[in-house]
Amino acid sequence: MTDQSKYNQRGVSAKKEDVYKAIEGLDKGLFPNAFCKVYPDYLLNNENYCTIVHADGAGTKSSLAYLYWKETGDISVWRGIAQDSLVMNTDDLICAGAVNDFLFCSIINRNKHLIPAEVLKEIIQGTNDFIRKMKSYGISIHYMGGETADLGDVVRTVTVDSTISCRMPRNRVIKNEIQPGDVIVGFASFGQATYESEYNSGIGSNGLTAARHDVLDHSYFNLYPETFDSEMKASLAYSGSKNVNDLFENAPLNVGKLLLSPTRTYAPLMKVLLEKYFDHIHGAIHCSGGGQTKVLHYVKGLHIIKDNLFPLPPVFKLIQQESKAEWKEMYQVFNMGHRLELYCDTSVANQLILIAGEFGIEARVIGRCELSEQKQVTIRSVYGEFNYH
Amino acid sequence: MTDQSKYNQRGVSAKKEDVYKAIEGLDKGLFPNAFCKVYPDYLLNNENYCTIVHADGAGTKSSLAYLYWKETGDISVWRGIAQDSLVMNTDDLICAGAVNDFLFCSIINRNKHLIPAEVLKEIIQGTNDFIRKMKSYGISIHYMGGETADLGDVVRTVTVDSTISCRMPRNRVIKNEIQPGDVIVGFASFGQATYESEYNSGIGSNGLTAARHDVLDHSYFNLYPETFDSEMKASLAYSGSKNVNDLFENAPLNVGKLLLSPTRTYAPLMKVLLEKYFDHIHGAIHCSGGGQTKVLHYVKGLHIIKDNLFPLPPVFKLIQQESKAEWKEMYQVFNMGHRLELYCDTSVANQLILIAGEFGIEARVIGRCELSEQKQVTIRSVYGEFNYH
Repeated sequence: MTDQSKYNQRGVSAKKEDVYKAIEGLDKGLFPNAFCKVYPDYLLNNENYCTIVHADGAGTKSSLAYLYWKETGDISVWRGIAQDSLVMNTDDLICAGAVNDFLFCSIINRNKHLIPAEVLKEIIQGTNDFIRKMKSYGISIHYMGGETADLGDVVRTVTVDSTISCRMPRNRVIKNEIQPGDVIVGFASFGQATYESEYNSGIGSNGLTAARHDVLDHSYFNLYPETFDSEMKASLAYSGSKNVNDLFENAPLNVGKLLLSPTRTYAPLMKVLLEKYFDHIHGAIHCSGGGQTKVLHYVKGLHIIKDNLFPLPPVFKLIQQESKAEWKEMYQVFNMGHRLELYCDTSVANQLILIAGEFGIEARVIGRCELSEQKQVTIRSVYGEFNYH
Repeated sequence: MTDQSKYNQRGVSAKKEDVYKAIEGLDKGLFPNAFCKVYPDYLLNNENYCTIVHADGAGTKSSLAYLYWKETGDISVWRGIAQDSLVMNTDDLICAGAVNDFLFCSIINRNKHLIPAEVLKEIIQGTNDFIRKMKSYGISIHYMGGETADLGDVVRTVTVDSTISCRMPRNRVIKNEIQPGDVIVGFASFGQATYESEYNSGIGSNGLTAARHDVLDHSYFNLYPETFDSEMKASLAYSGSKNVNDLFENAPLNVGKLLLSPTRTYAPLMKVLLEKYFDHIHGAIHCSGGGQTKVLHYVKGLHIIKDNLFPLPPVFKLIQQESKAEWKEMYQVFNMGHRLELYCDTSVANQLILIAGEFGIEARVIGRCELSEQKQVTIRSVYGEFNYH
């Protein structure tokens, strides 16, 4: 079976073609190339300001947290889900240039039979803890409440979504005007940042449907039917070889926690980088859905060459070994080592890398941009050379 | 089986006791008694302003829309779901006094196998149409984008949630300072307002899990297993006698559409009422979850006597006939005829009622407030007298 048909049969698509089609009529905002939709300052009508409202969530990672919690009794994994849901928003927003005064609101839809109040408490506590930690790095996130609904007829386990609103000066928006000659600085998604309490696998919150089913052992199929689509072909559900408590090579976390590692935020780092080098940063991409090819939505007439990516972190090696996915596909689904990339003048690349180092985040020039008739991304890696249009 | 245990077994609770417990540590905002959480003006730090961010959604009504669409082919019902998701937010906000410049953001989580792009399009189009209609009544809702995620492993069919943010002067917040001597004006949830294109049953978006299972025929149990919790006892799923195309007494809509009738917004009316009578309106309650007892969360030392409610609209009569639910319980789950109630001076009640009439919305003094040692609601209806604490 091709990777593509496996994705389709599991009901996910890395590219969301039909969603893009359904929303194509919607207003694209002030800066159509910016990473988030940026609208006028509707609240105060100040022409120098703009407003962004952003929504995203932990996706099917909540389903894995449920499985891990039931299997191990470790309820703290729900705190990671809270972080995933929040960071999937903050880290899109930082790519538009917004780094402060975030108004946060949460939406949790649960199956009350399976998700008790203790889980809700962990999610809320995890949110509060993360917000407090960010505050100590100068990032203000205001918890404005939210909704928790009992929807067992619609939700198998639980969805954990968030929205963040903010208002910012228009002249601080990163408009994604990426230029020929720009170099690309990639910032590691894995390792341990100064503001993280343990090793981060780098997984983020994308590709989790594939990762979970490809890696985990089929015994979970009968144990936890509530964690996957009941219409899914049995052969596609939990088709891997690993138990959540297994170890993989020298990775410092078990397989379950490698897959559940909370999405790293780059907000504390990005705040400093934008304060110092805003004028030199021409583009910022959050390599979420679409992985290393995400940038294709934000350029034209450019050839993006990525030929110095990070050595592959263990979690992605694990996923590929278990799924036997094509390497070309792996780079389209997962971040493969860096989830934030900045497009900038060569002159400042080294400074960006040095500042990242102060936060314990490895960074490097991973590639460059060249003039090209049609937009394309080329990845040159130890696993081969791949081209994407 | 008692009504209570039926609710529990279906995984819903009208009162959400354990959710309230899980969130009890969260900041209650500037005006703890207001209908929404009201926070300082974090964006501009103006002491005369405040900010509200609100989240809610169409709940399990989406599951009924799915069933109706599959059964009849009428895809337009998804537009109603868009309105439900939006109005569950606007009409909480108007009860806090916010009636304009709403920043709207949507979160749709779908099972891609069952919910194709055509459905997403109807939801987005329904949202746009509703926003356009509100604009003609002076209510600005700005569509700021949103997220559509493919989560078949977590979502059986689809969840349709929304958040709305707004900023407003603190001195225009309805603080819910309800007083002895206040009368209660109820505004009909049913009928046809001037801005509605057909009869509205008044159902709103609460109690839909109960309504759907209690009213609809068991044949749907085998036809649409994707529309309810697979853990639910078979005897509790679709335990009624009606098909969606059946008629009920003289109601102008079939049974499916009575239950799917889009939640009426009171925003156009409330905008006028607040402009003219803000100082006389001491309290505003959206009778959503909790139905006619919702006000209990917002008072102390008061006896709320409701002894002149609207004649029961057909949809609630239908639900009670099919469910055989206790009447006492019916008033705790459903709005039973009015979804907005204002607590005000006797002196202005008639003017409020007259203005409602201009919008085609029936209104009446449905009750009054008296001093009392402990807070309580008494309902005196043709179905009996009921007391709630």
